[in-house]
Amino acid sequence: MAQSDVLEQRPDDESDKACIQEEAPRAIHFDVFTLFPPMFSGALSESILARAQKRGILRVTLHNIRDYATDRHHTCDGYPYGGGGGMVMRPEPVVRAVETVLSRPQGWHLPDERDRFDLPAWNADEPPVPRQPTPIILLTPQGRRFDQSIAAGLSRHGRLALVCGRYEGVDERIRTQLITDELSIGDFVLSGGEIAALAIIDAVTRTLPGVLGHASGAMYDSFSDGLSGLLEGPQYTRPTAFRGEAVPEVLVSGHHANVEQWRREQSLLRSLQRRPDLLAQATIAGHLTLEDRQFLSSQGWQAPTDS
Amino acid sequence: MAQSDVLEQRPDDESDKACIQEEAPRAIHFDVFTLFPPMFSGALSESILARAQKRGILRVTLHNIRDYATDRHHTCDGYPYGGGGGMVMRPEPVVRAVETVLSRPQGWHLPDERDRFDLPAWNADEPPVPRQPTPIILLTPQGRRFDQSIAAGLSRHGRLALVCGRYEGVDERIRTQLITDELSIGDFVLSGGEIAALAIIDAVTRTLPGVLGHASGAMYDSFSDGLSGLLEGPQYTRPTAFRGEAVPEVLVSGHHANVEQWRREQSLLRSLQRRPDLLAQATIAGHLTLEDRQFLSSQGWQAPTDS
Repeated sequence: MAQSDVLEQRPDDESDKACIQEEAPRAIHFDVFTLFPPMFSGALSESILARAQKRGILRVTLHNIRDYATDRHHTCDGYPYGGGGGMVMRPEPVVRAVETVLSRPQGWHLPDERDRFDLPAWNADEPPVPRQPTPIILLTPQGRRFDQSIAAGLSRHGRLALVCGRYEGVDERIRTQLITDELSIGDFVLSGGEIAALAIIDAVTRTLPGVLGHASGAMYDSFSDGLSGLLEGPQYTRPTAFRGEAVPEVLVSGHHANVEQWRREQSLLRSLQRRPDLLAQATIAGHLTLEDRQFLSSQGWQAPTDS
Repeated sequence: MAQSDVLEQRPDDESDKACIQEEAPRAIHFDVFTLFPPMFSGALSESILARAQKRGILRVTLHNIRDYATDRHHTCDGYPYGGGGGMVMRPEPVVRAVETVLSRPQGWHLPDERDRFDLPAWNADEPPVPRQPTPIILLTPQGRRFDQSIAAGLSRHGRLALVCGRYEGVDERIRTQLITDELSIGDFVLSGGEIAALAIIDAVTRTLPGVLGHASGAMYDSFSDGLSGLLEGPQYTRPTAFRGEAVPEVLVSGHHANVEQWRREQSLLRSLQRRPDLLAQATIAGHLTLEDRQFLSSQGWQAPTDS
């Protein structure tokens, strides 16, 4: 088989189409609460997230928390009790925004300022009954660490509320009175939850059927089930040689089973070199085959003991 | 002391100013290589990142990788050798873009298309000598996990190149021939490195002196040295009572030492409840005092053994 044939041939194209048709179409709606809605404009308007919105799979409604602050200056922050640097987000505007939006149908948002007379009534001392139980997620470095399995879990909801913290932090009563879950994208501190919210919207959306251009979709991404939660191995495309480095022989051999075996071994090897913790998890979860373990042993891996 | 005085008084304001003046002004320049420059527009134009750019502390130059693809269609991707879903980023456009930019002064970018005749010369087989050693960081789920200490390390560079992967992955030779470091913001998969790059720009920038509005700055953020790498505890601002929940007495007492002790204990407690791994790290690093350990023991914590 000529090399170019191997490259162009996409044997799973047919089965891909079948898969797409079999899966029920799903859509997800994010209500995002932020002091900086324009931070989302660029990232939501390009590439996969733009396409998912066009296809009706993703919908994002941005809500400016500041619109729900009722004093003349629309104050959303205050000095921390007890002193210290930085400002803290006040509870009322955030709680009012989220409760107002979630007690209304999906897609609702406050009319433009020029068409708006008053904010919808809201009682600070009594939470309204939400239309449906919707996860209200605070983005904060103190939250559970977001990962691919949390992304898969969130993708099963039809509607999700993301609350972007800002300033040095949020008033604790936002947590106790409103928030149902807290997520962090990693052990680092951002200026606010906006970029974390974008990461979550992206990671969740790409797991939904029909978002990626091919139906094996996100299945063979790093951390995904198709790879037993491991890292993806090396990938190659044209040219066959670049700066003296050629594409591995096996990938141009046209021998499907050998390609599969090589890819599995490369995924195991990369995980061993870079993230042995993922191999330990995969072992405990029973995701490694006898061949996997034999290959890893030949590379110097020691299987975690059962102790 | 009246409660409002306690709230408004910011005893560290003076020392804050002194700190700002003492620290040498530093600036950081990011060259970002992406197929989707517009993804950055919103997030870089708001809030702290906008302010840091205005103050000359942060500079971001966006480079469209597609401008460096020389075929008629500006092709940047190709089918993976060996088959499978998704597309792989080709090596030449990325390597050409990064090598062209980094062999020129900071801030250089390709002229607008209408003013451009030819791409600068570039030899695919011979890397040019860079002007200075600049970290060339690929954003990929296979990278080292970015955290606050990596952010602090990166902030010491004057210039950094961030390469945003796209499609299912990048040709392996981009790694072997160009990239000097690989970072991941977490164990999840994004559609591309753009949102990860934004997270890194934000986290790195906020550690620089003069970026935050107060000079204790990022020092008491979660994961930071001021908190021994632990989580921040609860924060409160006005009103004193919200939905029946009052601000803790100690924070309105005006007793500075008691406030400090309460905050330390709350930070320990939150870390114990949510991230005991951070307490283990802080113990090993010798960051916990005798009082810290006694308080934690009273809360049921068992110190990690030395084994």
